[in-house]
Amino acid sequence: MISVGIDMGSVAAKAIAYDGKGIAAKVIMPTGWSPKETGQKIMEELLRLGNIEREQVAMIVGTGYGRIALPFIDRKVTEITCHGKGAYYLNPAVRTVIDIGGQDSKVIRVDEEGAVVDFLMNDKCAAGTGRFLQVMAHALEVDVSELSQIARGAEPRSINSMCTVFAESEVVSLMAEGASKESIAAGLLQSVVNKTYSLASRLGIQGKVFFSGGVARNPLLSDLLGQKLNTEVFVSPLSQFNGAIGAALIGYEHLIKG
Amino acid sequence: MISVGIDMGSVAAKAIAYDGKGIAAKVIMPTGWSPKETGQKIMEELLRLGNIEREQVAMIVGTGYGRIALPFIDRKVTEITCHGKGAYYLNPAVRTVIDIGGQDSKVIRVDEEGAVVDFLMNDKCAAGTGRFLQVMAHALEVDVSELSQIARGAEPRSINSMCTVFAESEVVSLMAEGASKESIAAGLLQSVVNKTYSLASRLGIQGKVFFSGGVARNPLLSDLLGQKLNTEVFVSPLSQFNGAIGAALIGYEHLIKG
Ligand code: SF4
Repeated sequence: MISVGIDMGSVAAKAIAYDGKGIAAKVIMPTGWSPKETGQKIMEELLRLGNIEREQVAMIVGTGYGRIALPFIDRKVTEITCHGKGAYYLNPAVRTVIDIGGQDSKVIRVDEEGAVVDFLMNDKCAAGTGRFLQVMAHALEVDVSELSQIARGAEPRSINSMCTVFAESEVVSLMAEGASKESIAAGLLQSVVNKTYSLASRLGIQGKVFFSGGVARNPLLSDLLGQKLNTEVFVSPLSQFNGAIGAALIGYEHLIKG
Repeated sequence: MISVGIDMGSVAAKAIAYDGKGIAAKVIMPTGWSPKETGQKIMEELLRLGNIEREQVAMIVGTGYGRIALPFIDRKVTEITCHGKGAYYLNPAVRTVIDIGGQDSKVIRVDEEGAVVDFLMNDKCAAGTGRFLQVMAHALEVDVSELSQIARGAEPRSINSMCTVFAESEVVSLMAEGASKESIAAGLLQSVVNKTYSLASRLGIQGKVFFSGGVARNPLLSDLLGQKLNTEVFVSPLSQFNGAIGAALIGYEHLIKG
């Protein structure tokens, strides 16, 4: 009996197959222009990679902003709930989840069973999200995946504007003045950390912190976040799948309950 | 005896020569990369156009974000104070000034002499500023000065995101879906009006409203703003010079006082 979780994010689609013992298969692909088509594709790919028959899948749970575009799912669950559950699975000691996705960021407080106690979300402002880093990487003429690497060890140039639009102009000016890409990249990561910190402070940080979402793959960012929060920040190699894992687990719980 | 006001904005530099009877000369030019050089240039141009000798200028007052870069000015005055005074000069009945500049927006309440009673300013977020319209005009592949013209009479497509970055993506998607530039442009102007309205509501609108700043040159925008605020919105052909006029007047008052 298999439960599938699909997290259709704004930038990346993630799918997880859970068989009651562990993760049987996982797939990630770009969401692209059509979440609907991507949903079909990621489902096929998941079955193929996991060597799973369609009939074995007893439940499909969708989450993420594009979940409404998936006609074949059995349930829809909010990202907040899924991220809480996923973080609990990956590290049961966690009480705070910080998720920075392609277009939003969230801070979620969970109880000792991974249920959501409280949360704050920013999906109105691109600052402090993956989108900010994408715009800035473009201005720096590097790939977003390189930011952490080039920034490590550099003296950060502080970026005054929180706003993505104004910060982009600042980056262009700093480059024209001859500031190094390394120092600018370090400043930009610090800017994301500061913005995340202000969201986290509004909710209040409790217990161990789990960092999830696509932006969590940036290793320097999680280090800087830990320094700023003055606490250990836990990142899993499966961090990006956190929402999909939570969705699959929630589906599985429904199956065994009834 | 002449007083000069220079408003060094983020996008445009404005200069006014006031001779105690009226505006003797005015110049506007792009701020460009160096507010310092532009300051020299606009001063020379003002004297040339107004046929004014340098010795006749008894006072130069600077305002705007770039005022710190002007070594030759006698006084620096904040934009808020200058906009209040300028609006009073252009229309003494005005009690509220809404100024939308290239990178910020302000709502200012003035008393019956043009002195500032209260104000609110947004210079942290590009939404609702001239910058928003510039980014959007670029996405629509039109010139920012054409927005009003193409939007007039069109059924607005509502833009869901307030954020400049997210709204830009929305515009690109809407165009890909075949929405007309006209309807998108109308939706974008409405978005600026909504953002301005929310700033204005926080301060509270009192008395007659004066609309100044570069964005006020957009005639449809001032109409929409009037509808939303449910009041008459006064725009002058000199709206964009409002800050510089205020600066020149404040300088003149200092001269006659002593
Ligand atoms: S501050 Fe900048 S990034 Fe944030 S909502 Fe405003 S325009 Fe968007």
